[in-house]
Amino acid sequence: MVVDPTRSTRVFDEPVRDPRGVAETSPGGEPRVSRLVPLLGAEDYRQVLNAFRRELPAAATLEPHLAGAVADLLAAPGSLIRAQLAFGTGKALGLEVAAARALATAVEYLHTASLVFDDLPAMDDAVERRGRPCPHLLHGEGAAILAALAFVHRAHALVAQATFGQPEERARRAWECLESQIGLGGILDGQARDLHFSGIGDSASLAAGKTTPLLRLALLLPAIVAGVSPAIEATLDRIAAIFGDTYQALDDFRDLFESSAQSGKTAGRDRLLGRPNRVEALGAQEAWRTLDRNLVEARSAIEELAALPELVAPLARMRDLFVGESVRIAAELRSIE
Amino acid sequence: MVVDPTRSTRVFDEPVRDPRGVAETSPGGEPRVSRLVPLLGAEDYRQVLNAFRRELPAAATLEPHLAGAVADLLAAPGSLIRAQLAFGTGKALGLEVAAARALATAVEYLHTASLVFDDLPAMDDAVERRGRPCPHLLHGEGAAILAALAFVHRAHALVAQATFGQPEERARRAWECLESQIGLGGILDGQARDLHFSGIGDSASLAAGKTTPLLRLALLLPAIVAGVSPAIEATLDRIAAIFGDTYQALDDFRDLFESSAQSGKTAGRDRLLGRPNRVEALGAQEAWRTLDRNLVEARSAIEELAALPELVAPLARMRDLFVGESVRIAAELRSIE
Repeated sequence: MVVDPTRSTRVFDEPVRDPRGVAETSPGGEPRVSRLVPLLGAEDYRQVLNAFRRELPAAATLEPHLAGAVADLLAAPGSLIRAQLAFGTGKALGLEVAAARALATAVEYLHTASLVFDDLPAMDDAVERRGRPCPHLLHGEGAAILAALAFVHRAHALVAQATFGQPEERARRAWECLESQIGLGGILDGQARDLHFSGIGDSASLAAGKTTPLLRLALLLPAIVAGVSPAIEATLDRIAAIFGDTYQALDDFRDLFESSAQSGKTAGRDRLLGRPNRVEALGAQEAWRTLDRNLVEARSAIEELAALPELVAPLARMRDLFVGESVRIAAELRSIE
Repeated sequence: MVVDPTRSTRVFDEPVRDPRGVAETSPGGEPRVSRLVPLLGAEDYRQVLNAFRRELPAAATLEPHLAGAVADLLAAPGSLIRAQLAFGTGKALGLEVAAARALATAVEYLHTASLVFDDLPAMDDAVERRGRPCPHLLHGEGAAILAALAFVHRAHALVAQATFGQPEERARRAWECLESQIGLGGILDGQARDLHFSGIGDSASLAAGKTTPLLRLALLLPAIVAGVSPAIEATLDRIAAIFGDTYQALDDFRDLFESSAQSGKTAGRDRLLGRPNRVEALGAQEAWRTLDRNLVEARSAIEELAALPELVAPLARMRDLFVGESVRIAAELRSIE
């Protein structure tokens, strides 16, 4: 196997121990499974985490079910991978910190909302997310939907905020990018295909439709607003596509091999719902080889950005984490054989 | 009774006969109940209608359930009251036609999405809207939700589009206005209160939470982007609040007295769902008096804008339509007595 892990943290199922002192218990006091995925330095990570928690303030008079759903979602930020990538990319490319933070939070809010919608009874009908019952189970389906919409609306406002005072052309392109990834040509089509899929099939195109769009936004929105060269933009775009596919592949492995307690979300959904899973479709060994090829391609794409070491750092860490997770999966595959 | 109707068209339950040659049958050929509410001249109305139908294009490859839901929603634009008010306001205040049209479509798309969410089984569990089965019944709940999200996303992009090239301060204020009306402090809280309401109560505060926000956006977004005086903005804000309350009052009457065939949506929902209805709460006569007071206040607020006759025209027509509808209700009340 070609993979040469530089780090082999078992980060994807590691229970959160946040070194920065953020409380990791839920409001009710029960421990919460989350994932600490450090792509940024401690201070930058703290900024991203605090922005996530603070950028959707609710009045004390907010209807209680809706308030509960929003508060729960804000209290369980998950790995913040997309926000970290966006913030790191924005800062490395010279965006003002406030703008980088706004874009980071926007992308993460869109991700949060998409999980809420995904988990609804009419979609995946999941019961668990981030180690907790899904918001629709705790607060009612109506409140969950309205809370998710609050995250969607706020995300758009944050993108707008990040473009204020920028040249009009950058603002236009940022909005085009946003629309292309989250609209009918992006994640909505991907989710609809996922939902109406039957039988074993193409997990790679699902990744392109569902997983890649938000990673693409994480890398491209800051790049566009910062006004980078088309070459850098194209490389970031390629990296987003590789990361998206790798993410989906690892998710496919986890869906088959991990319990809900390990992953923090309902396990075995693909098989139960007849969703495409490449591990089932290709077999574990072949699926692993695709994963491995992705990791090699990611390395060479990231190397193209070597002139911008600050830009490279979070991307290389992300790849390292994928490598570590792959190594763990390879070990599990050997133990199963 | 103080009301002096200048027109008494029964516009709210009038089956659509579109004088502008737009097909008024659904793709399947069955007649569709909709409402023709002419607030603008024929050419302006056509612009608004065409923009509604064309601003959310879908690729031929779009997942079929999602494509079906989107196409159905685009084919049944409803009364386009909010779009007409926004377009008329924007044009009257000197906005470029493209910007006025973008804001008009944005507000109407937000309205369309809110109806889809409202009608879901987890919310009102309605079966009929605009004379057709609700999208979740025709295309599945998942596809309905994703379609509504497409309208939400596109609406934000259209607002962004309308602010490109405008002074930054106007863009900032437009986004603040948008957020305040559709976010947690606006329609989302209103919908959550509606959803979790039990017993007969305050239909006026429901109007303020659910109906007024989009009318306020229709009048204020174009005004803000056009950069009007604070005085005009304040008057438009007052008119939006009065119109919102009047709209809700008429809806309360219709919910009690009209069949689904007349209104084009599921009737008797308030009583069935235990929602506040002011006609039940106050009695028909008292509810009618509130309505009447609103219409008097609307007239004096609109008169404050007399220096801008183009701005007055659609607002005065809107009020005329409310008057006509009120007269019809008064007649029905007499016939019931």
